[in-house]
Amino acid sequence: MSNQSYSVAVVGLGSMGMGAALSCINAGLETYGIDLNQAALEKLKAAGAKAVATNGDEFAEKLDAVVILVVNAAQTNAVLFGENGLANKLKPGTVVMASSTMAADDAKAISQKLTDLGLIMLDAPVSGGAAKAAQGEMTVMASGSQEAFSKLQPVLDAVAGKVYNIGEEIGLGATVKIIHQLLAGVHIAAGAEAMALAAKAGIPLNLMYDVVTNAAGNSWMFENRMKHVVDGDYTPLSMVDIFVKDLGLVNDTAKSLRFPLHLASTAYSMFTEASNAGYGKEDDSAVIKIFSGIELPKKGEN
Amino acid sequence: MSNQSYSVAVVGLGSMGMGAALSCINAGLETYGIDLNQAALEKLKAAGAKAVATNGDEFAEKLDAVVILVVNAAQTNAVLFGENGLANKLKPGTVVMASSTMAADDAKAISQKLTDLGLIMLDAPVSGGAAKAAQGEMTVMASGSQEAFSKLQPVLDAVAGKVYNIGEEIGLGATVKIIHQLLAGVHIAAGAEAMALAAKAGIPLNLMYDVVTNAAGNSWMFENRMKHVVDGDYTPLSMVDIFVKDLGLVNDTAKSLRFPLHLASTAYSMFTEASNAGYGKEDDSAVIKIFSGIELPKKGEN
Repeated sequence: MSNQSYSVAVVGLGSMGMGAALSCINAGLETYGIDLNQAALEKLKAAGAKAVATNGDEFAEKLDAVVILVVNAAQTNAVLFGENGLANKLKPGTVVMASSTMAADDAKAISQKLTDLGLIMLDAPVSGGAAKAAQGEMTVMASGSQEAFSKLQPVLDAVAGKVYNIGEEIGLGATVKIIHQLLAGVHIAAGAEAMALAAKAGIPLNLMYDVVTNAAGNSWMFENRMKHVVDGDYTPLSMVDIFVKDLGLVNDTAKSLRFPLHLASTAYSMFTEASNAGYGKEDDSAVIKIFSGIELPKKGEN
Repeated sequence: MSNQSYSVAVVGLGSMGMGAALSCINAGLETYGIDLNQAALEKLKAAGAKAVATNGDEFAEKLDAVVILVVNAAQTNAVLFGENGLANKLKPGTVVMASSTMAADDAKAISQKLTDLGLIMLDAPVSGGAAKAAQGEMTVMASGSQEAFSKLQPVLDAVAGKVYNIGEEIGLGATVKIIHQLLAGVHIAAGAEAMALAAKAGIPLNLMYDVVTNAAGNSWMFENRMKHVVDGDYTPLSMVDIFVKDLGLVNDTAKSLRFPLHLASTAYSMFTEASNAGYGKEDDSAVIKIFSGIELPKKGEN
C-alpha cells in the first residue's frame, strides 16, 4: 500500500453490503461496488464510489481487498470462481473478506482455493442488521491469519463496531456466526409462539409487546421483529427463507458434530412450515402465521 | 387512610419479596414482614420494618395492603386461607396484591374467596429479578378493579418501575406473566443449547458470550444467565426447578386454550431432564448440563 490510497471492492450490495460499502466511502477508502442490480450500483456511484460494475474486470487488479456480502457459500463460490470469476483477476496477496453465512467446511474449501491462487482469506461473517451496517458499526466474528487481519484493518475500521478474533483456523468464524444464528432464529420463533399464545388468550399484542420489552423475557429479536407483528407489517427486511437456510446450516453443523439441538431443530421446522405455507418471501416474523385460530393485528390498525 | 400513614405487609421475603419490602420502607410506608425464615425477618427488621413475624396475628388489622410474593398458588392459598391464615384477620376493604406466578384459574379462585370476605385482589405478577426488586424498579403486570389499583398506588409507586394495567378481569395479569415466562424459559434453554454447541465446536465460551451479547442474537436471559456458565458458577439465583414449574404452567395454559407450543414444550422437557438428572436446585443455567460430551468452564478458571 505504501503511500497510495487503499482500494476495496464490495461484492453484493444488499442491505448489509450497501451499508458496508457506504461506510468504506465515508472512511475515505477508494471503494468499488459489484452487483447485478443496476439500481444498487447507481446508488453507490452517486454516494461516491470510484467505480461500479456487474463484474470486476475493469478494476480487479487495483484492489487491496474484496468484501463479499452475498447470500451464501454457493454465491460466494460463483463470485470468486464462477464464469468470469473475480479470483483469477486479483493480484497476488489481495485479501478476501468472506462475510456470508456459510458452513465451516465451505469456508475452508473457499480458503484453500484462494490460497492456491496466492490470495488470502479472512473468514469473517457479520451481524447487526442494515442499520448497524449503514453506520459502520457491524459486529464481525472473524478467523484467519494475522496477515489477513492486518491487511483488512482499514476495512474493519470502516465497517465494524466490534471485531472478534476467534482464532487462526478458517471455519471458526463461520461456526460462531452459525451458533449466533441458532439464537437469532430460536428467538424469532419463540417471540412468534409467545405472541400467538397471547392472541389466543385475549391479551392485546401491543400491551404484551410493551411488557416483554420492559422485562427479563426480552430479546434483541423479540424487540425488533415482534414490532412487525404488532404493526401487522410483514414487508421483508429479512425473509422467512433466510432462516430456513440459516437454521438449516445450524442443524447441518450439529449433524457434522453429532450433537443434539432440541430447540433449533424445532425452530427450523417452524420456519420451514411457514415457507411451505407460502410465507417464505415475507418478513421472518411471519413465522407466526403457522398458528391457526388467532386474529393478528392488521396494518394501519394500531 | 385519611391522615394516617399507609401500612403494608410483605409476605414471603425471598429475593423478590425482600427487595419489595425494602423498597416500601425506603418509600416511607409502614412496612411489616412475614416469613418463616428468621434470618430474613431479622434483616428486614434491622432495615426499618415496623414489625416482623412468622404470621400476621399482631398487625393484620392495621394493614391497608398485603403483598404476597411466595412461590406459587398453593403457597398463596396457604398464606391467606390455611391454618392461621391471614385473610380472616384483615379488615374489610384491605387490598391484596397477589404477585406469585400462577395459572389464571388459580388467580380467579383466590380472588373469589377474598371477595367473599370483603377483601379486594389485584392479580399482579412481577418481573425484573432481585436487583430490580431491591431498587424499587420491578415490572408489574396487573389486572383488577380500578379500586384495587388505586388502593395499591403507594405500594406500586414504591416497588415498580413500570406498572401495566392489563384490564379489569382477574387472570389476565397471571396469563401475561405466564407468557412472559415462556420467553424467559425458552431463552435460557436456547442460550444453553447454543453454548453447548459452541463448546462442542471448540469455540471458547467467553468469546462466544462476548460475540452474542454484542449482536442481534442477544437476550436478557442469555446475557444474565450464560455469564454463570462462562464463570462455571451454578450457585442458584433462580433454580432449574422454578422453570420446571413455570414452563409447566405455560404448557397447562396452552392445554386449557387448546393451543400448540412447539418451543415451550421442548424447553419444558429440557428443564425437566436437568431436574431429573439431579440439577433441580442449581442455578437455572445448569440446564446446559443435560448435554454430554462437552467440557464446560469450571469456577475460578477464567
